[in-house]
Amino acid sequence: MLLSLLAATAAAGLSPTDIVAQAPAEAWRDIAPADLLVMTLADGGTVTIQLAPGWAPVHVANIATFATARFWDGAGINRVQDNYVVQWGDATRAAPAAVQPTPPAEYQRPLAGTGFRPLGFPDAYARQTGHAGGWPVATDGKGNGWLVHCYGMVGVGRDMSPDTGTGAELYAVIGHAPRHLDRNIALVGRVIDGIERLSALPRGTDALGIYADAAQHVPIASIRRGDSGTTAPAWQYLATDSPTFAAYATARANRQDAFFNLPAGGADICNVPVPLRRKPGG
Amino acid sequence: MLLSLLAATAAAGLSPTDIVAQAPAEAWRDIAPADLLVMTLADGGTVTIQLAPGWAPVHVANIATFATARFWDGAGINRVQDNYVVQWGDATRAAPAAVQPTPPAEYQRPLAGTGFRPLGFPDAYARQTGHAGGWPVATDGKGNGWLVHCYGMVGVGRDMSPDTGTGAELYAVIGHAPRHLDRNIALVGRVIDGIERLSALPRGTDALGIYADAAQHVPIASIRRGDSGTTAPAWQYLATDSPTFAAYATARANRQDAFFNLPAGGADICNVPVPLRRKPGG
Repeated sequence: MLLSLLAATAAAGLSPTDIVAQAPAEAWRDIAPADLLVMTLADGGTVTIQLAPGWAPVHVANIATFATARFWDGAGINRVQDNYVVQWGDATRAAPAAVQPTPPAEYQRPLAGTGFRPLGFPDAYARQTGHAGGWPVATDGKGNGWLVHCYGMVGVGRDMSPDTGTGAELYAVIGHAPRHLDRNIALVGRVIDGIERLSALPRGTDALGIYADAAQHVPIASIRRGDSGTTAPAWQYLATDSPTFAAYATARANRQDAFFNLPAGGADICNVPVPLRRKPGG
Repeated sequence: MLLSLLAATAAAGLSPTDIVAQAPAEAWRDIAPADLLVMTLADGGTVTIQLAPGWAPVHVANIATFATARFWDGAGINRVQDNYVVQWGDATRAAPAAVQPTPPAEYQRPLAGTGFRPLGFPDAYARQTGHAGGWPVATDGKGNGWLVHCYGMVGVGRDMSPDTGTGAELYAVIGHAPRHLDRNIALVGRVIDGIERLSALPRGTDALGIYADAAQHVPIASIRRGDSGTTAPAWQYLATDSPTFAAYATARANRQDAFFNLPAGGADICNVPVPLRRKPGG
């Protein structure tokens, strides 16, 4: 089926978007509501984050605890660095008692059991890149895997090592993938909706894009878990071990749409973003 | 000298920023004023672009003609697509007579004579990447070189091939490097100052990030050449064939600053941006 799908795709010159639009229902996987985090800004705009408990369980548990405790309500976005990150939260407030103050360095995990699908193209940072369980992943070829700092990925702000951060301050990538941060910071998820509410914010003018004046902070009304009883919409991702995803990845690397003269014959991991959608009827 | 500089760098754990700050004066090259383009937005903010006549001479000559004719004055930014591009100009206005209406497809050129310095790390899109004359470049290993779609790079909007665009509409990259566009569109330069005046604009809500309403267009007061008599500041780039650049590139790929636990041992071409500065006293 995979080959015939690929062949049909090439013959039809389908774009990656077309392929995703034609994906069968069984290629989509539900995202558990407990893995969603909904940030509501003071102006009513929302940003939805999918957490990755399989990759950074202690940090993600902390984040869930912070959200349940309404820790971030009234905090703000305090850093917007162009071509880099947006950061929010407040590491100076007292954390809830259930928060682990010194989480382990959850920078990688065994690749086994993740359903890793190699993308198959060279990478400057890792032995191999690919996707696993809907996430962009890299590996050292020695059995270790880690999440990759692609656009929209969410990580935990920290001070100097061995501190890993509690999760009280989070950041999202809003520029070219800062892959040098891979395995140096705990990645805990990604923005799946509303990234433009972060990426289009005014840049901070102090070092590292920090807002020079606290009055510039963008206030956060609330951050809630997707299973907290609020009406968070249901989301799905395209299964990265599905034939549709294989066809999509191939089409991303070999663009056949009419606009293109010369297909690249390759794609980097961050240019093969995992398709996401609102669950039909959800 | 190179090896001793590299050794000193590693020993000192210098950051890329430190290395650039310590660059000797002779490592800096002036950017010709004729190669600068200054866009002034209606709110007074400016965006400075360095053109690349060595890579797309006909398109760059067209752009110079448009600027001299004040073609863009009163035009606007009409497209802001998140994690992709900002686009401005107006391909519907009548072009000045000196504009070449059907430029050749300046998508690559012979690498010979460009001073190409290989970066030395694997790449998903090209045989090799590196820098040449201050630009990020890729090669097929068959003697052809091309500019790379890194963050901030500026290209020429076009319709379907074989159209290459006249230069009347330009775009700048504001997201993860869309490398699949390499060799499919004419790149003509890069934003060297003021990118945040583009990247932080509200995203367009129509397909491709087009502003749904012309009233949302961000008005352009003027776009002028840097040698047009206005007071454009002088700029310099770090010579990409200098020992300082070699040390900088090595440090970008092997971060020794205190924040990092694990140097990547590699870097992609767009994560080794060419350092730029205002010319001292300029």
